[in-house]
Amino acid sequence: MADKASIGVTGLAVMGRNLARNLARHGHTVALHNRTDKRTRELVDQFGSEGEFIPAYSAREFVDALERPRQIVIMVKAGEPTDAVIEEFAPLLESGDVIVDAGNAHFADTRRREAQLRERGLHFVGTGVSGGEEGALHGPSIMPGGSKASYESLGPLLEDISAKVDGDPCCTHIGADGAGHFVKMVHNGIEYADMQLIAESFDLLRGALGHEPAQIAEVFRTWNTGRLDSYLIEITAQVLAHTDAGTGKPFVDVVADQAEQKGTGRWTVQIGLDLGVPISGIAEAVFARSLSGHADLRIGSRELPGPSRSKLKGAEAEGFADDVERALYASKIVAYAQGFNQIQAGGSEYGWDIDLGAVASIWRGGCIIRAKFLDDIRGAYEAEPGLPTLLTSGGFNAAVADAQDSWRRVVATAAQLGIPTPGFSTALAYYDGLRAPRLPAALIQGQRDFFGAHTYRRTDRDGAFHTAWATDDRAESEA
Amino acid sequence: MADKASIGVTGLAVMGRNLARNLARHGHTVALHNRTDKRTRELVDQFGSEGEFIPAYSAREFVDALERPRQIVIMVKAGEPTDAVIEEFAPLLESGDVIVDAGNAHFADTRRREAQLRERGLHFVGTGVSGGEEGALHGPSIMPGGSKASYESLGPLLEDISAKVDGDPCCTHIGADGAGHFVKMVHNGIEYADMQLIAESFDLLRGALGHEPAQIAEVFRTWNTGRLDSYLIEITAQVLAHTDAGTGKPFVDVVADQAEQKGTGRWTVQIGLDLGVPISGIAEAVFARSLSGHADLRIGSRELPGPSRSKLKGAEAEGFADDVERALYASKIVAYAQGFNQIQAGGSEYGWDIDLGAVASIWRGGCIIRAKFLDDIRGAYEAEPGLPTLLTSGGFNAAVADAQDSWRRVVATAAQLGIPTPGFSTALAYYDGLRAPRLPAALIQGQRDFFGAHTYRRTDRDGAFHTAWATDDRAESEA
Repeated sequence: MADKASIGVTGLAVMGRNLARNLARHGHTVALHNRTDKRTRELVDQFGSEGEFIPAYSAREFVDALERPRQIVIMVKAGEPTDAVIEEFAPLLESGDVIVDAGNAHFADTRRREAQLRERGLHFVGTGVSGGEEGALHGPSIMPGGSKASYESLGPLLEDISAKVDGDPCCTHIGADGAGHFVKMVHNGIEYADMQLIAESFDLLRGALGHEPAQIAEVFRTWNTGRLDSYLIEITAQVLAHTDAGTGKPFVDVVADQAEQKGTGRWTVQIGLDLGVPISGIAEAVFARSLSGHADLRIGSRELPGPSRSKLKGAEAEGFADDVERALYASKIVAYAQGFNQIQAGGSEYGWDIDLGAVASIWRGGCIIRAKFLDDIRGAYEAEPGLPTLLTSGGFNAAVADAQDSWRRVVATAAQLGIPTPGFSTALAYYDGLRAPRLPAALIQGQRDFFGAHTYRRTDRDGAFHTAWATDDRAESEA
Repeated sequence: MADKASIGVTGLAVMGRNLARNLARHGHTVALHNRTDKRTRELVDQFGSEGEFIPAYSAREFVDALERPRQIVIMVKAGEPTDAVIEEFAPLLESGDVIVDAGNAHFADTRRREAQLRERGLHFVGTGVSGGEEGALHGPSIMPGGSKASYESLGPLLEDISAKVDGDPCCTHIGADGAGHFVKMVHNGIEYADMQLIAESFDLLRGALGHEPAQIAEVFRTWNTGRLDSYLIEITAQVLAHTDAGTGKPFVDVVADQAEQKGTGRWTVQIGLDLGVPISGIAEAVFARSLSGHADLRIGSRELPGPSRSKLKGAEAEGFADDVERALYASKIVAYAQGFNQIQAGGSEYGWDIDLGAVASIWRGGCIIRAKFLDDIRGAYEAEPGLPTLLTSGGFNAAVADAQDSWRRVVATAAQLGIPTPGFSTALAYYDGLRAPRLPAALIQGQRDFFGAHTYRRTDRDGAFHTAWATDDRAESEA
């Protein structure tokens, strides 16, 4: 057994425990610490044979068990508990030591903590870890921020325990200070959008075609053999195929249709608004969950009138499932294009030099949105690192061109049949907005100048202009 | 000339100057103060004959010029300048005096300031003032928050200078601390949504029917004689009818089609997310402006393929303008329903007892969204103060029932022709989501339980449940 541990984990609830086990299984000696000793003992008792652990029962003991530079992974609740743990250990550490926050912190908190600890000579690495409990144990997707220097010692360990795709680790240094947590936040936002689009696809197949969940599970299973091949499509098929044992009904029909939202989806939209990035796909997904949870409002609205027809028939129905597959694929491209643009904008705002191709690459495995599709995104950014939007990259452009008739048909059909598709609809509106040679924003600028003298710019010459709307001649002047 | 002034205004840029003149024109003696004396002198020189002013050239002089309880209106930039001015005057004031912030402060700042000044025995009133420069002079819509006690002295003055509709002042006490600025924020968010819907209507009439702006101005002029009668529709007709003198082209065609967004639209969405209120109409309006401003992204996306057909012809085209009118009206109901629900949620969250009918009432005049329509909203909330959503109130319910075929046709047509209608589309999706007996959120809950053991609730019994997805029997257990 090694004298000293190469890394320590404090906070041994299930995520911390599984990260510690994953590290030990990869041959690293892991120091263990928890607020209460019970969890530390349990870990050693139950999983001590998996590798080398050094249990520690005080902060001092924990710190002394670590090789220099010390590397401490904190896995506690975001917010005040994280600050408390940092303050417990920071005074015991020495220049060059590394504190890693592997929780779901807001990147602004991570930036603050990094700056404070840098002042004290310590490295602070906020890292996104995606993949849930199973991922933490068997190989998550890992998104570390912080200094490049910290990644020199920490990177090899994180890469060891990360998921691998084609031999490549699903872990890369994202960028300075809060970059890792920022990218993890957007990952979660994209996850919201992706799940919403899948949910709308299910709703369309059921609503418009009258298919049963088990039939629809088959459709998803087929989709999962093609370009939509992904973890989320795979588990959707499994969830839809599941029969509730107690009632014999399809599982999805006995589950309350009120979704929950955690902080990261909401944060993504709020930060997108601050950055001025139109991430409508993620926003609609967050709103759709929030709408579903308003039980009273929904019950009170059940009698609102709907359209006279609600199903497709005969020839109309034929090919509709294929249309939905194309609409889903195109909408998904939009959602990811928006998310990657948000990462790009965050990078510019905060001075992170983020390699978007590398981000796509480390999302290919370990995390919830892992998908074949991400390999195409990686390829698109590798071919053109400054790509303004995924939509214009060769492969995706062609896919959308091929999909658009179906996409338009699906959105139109949903509107006609009264099936809510906020995700598909906003994706299409974004697409059509992007490609529009002229947008009616010109009218909005005219209105704003009319009521608030906000001025407008012109298409034919530079400057800010104001029209004297209240006068007879409505003369234009340069403002 | 009165010895003392009943109210004072500090910050004499155009908004402050016009409020001061409005007060003086209504017979109130107004003390004047500005950071630099020049503006104070100018006001007295140019407008001194409009009423009684007491110019003051120091903070002390200004405070001494006021009757007790002193009432000071601050009209400076939101943020630090507001805090600075408060700190300049607060030490000179006495218990019971009132500081009024008439700028566009974030309601959270207003709450903070109110609490701090309350500790010091002062009233702090954050008030929304809508109507721009002209409104400030001739009668704005005024939304004061703060204590009821402060409204006793301040209310009559504010009501005096506010717009009047059917003899009613467009000013009412909204609720404690930040309630006034909160309601003003949502007002602006609704304004964003309303303008976006109007812009989409224009774009549809032009895109689908090929009408020229002058023709479309006529359509808006006609709409303005019916249920859409409102300031925004009226000025839209005027903007569209305007010809650019220099080029002879329609004005709207020479204006750069990149809209700007100020803080309040974005704040509304961010706070809506915090409150869990689906305000997708406002969000899409903010995103549409933000998209329009991404010039490089749009230029890079111009070659994205669009649909093969882009115009309606013959019988299809007939009646389309009427369809758009109905779609606009229905979408507008949704946008306002969402906004009023946000005010309701804010009221619950912050303990404000907001009278939604009164809010609708004071928006009928003075402000940018003033409209006949708001009288119907006032009526709906007066008839049923606890109305869960405007959509289920008698008149609006009937209007939407009547409009929905047109609404669906317009959204479907826009999708088919490639005209971006994020506002119309999200409004319809929200409507269909609200009335859906089952939403695919059930599938999302199943997915979340699958990948993260987040548990789900059931339709047929209480409790939180988890399915052992990884095992063969997939047994359900209560969590």
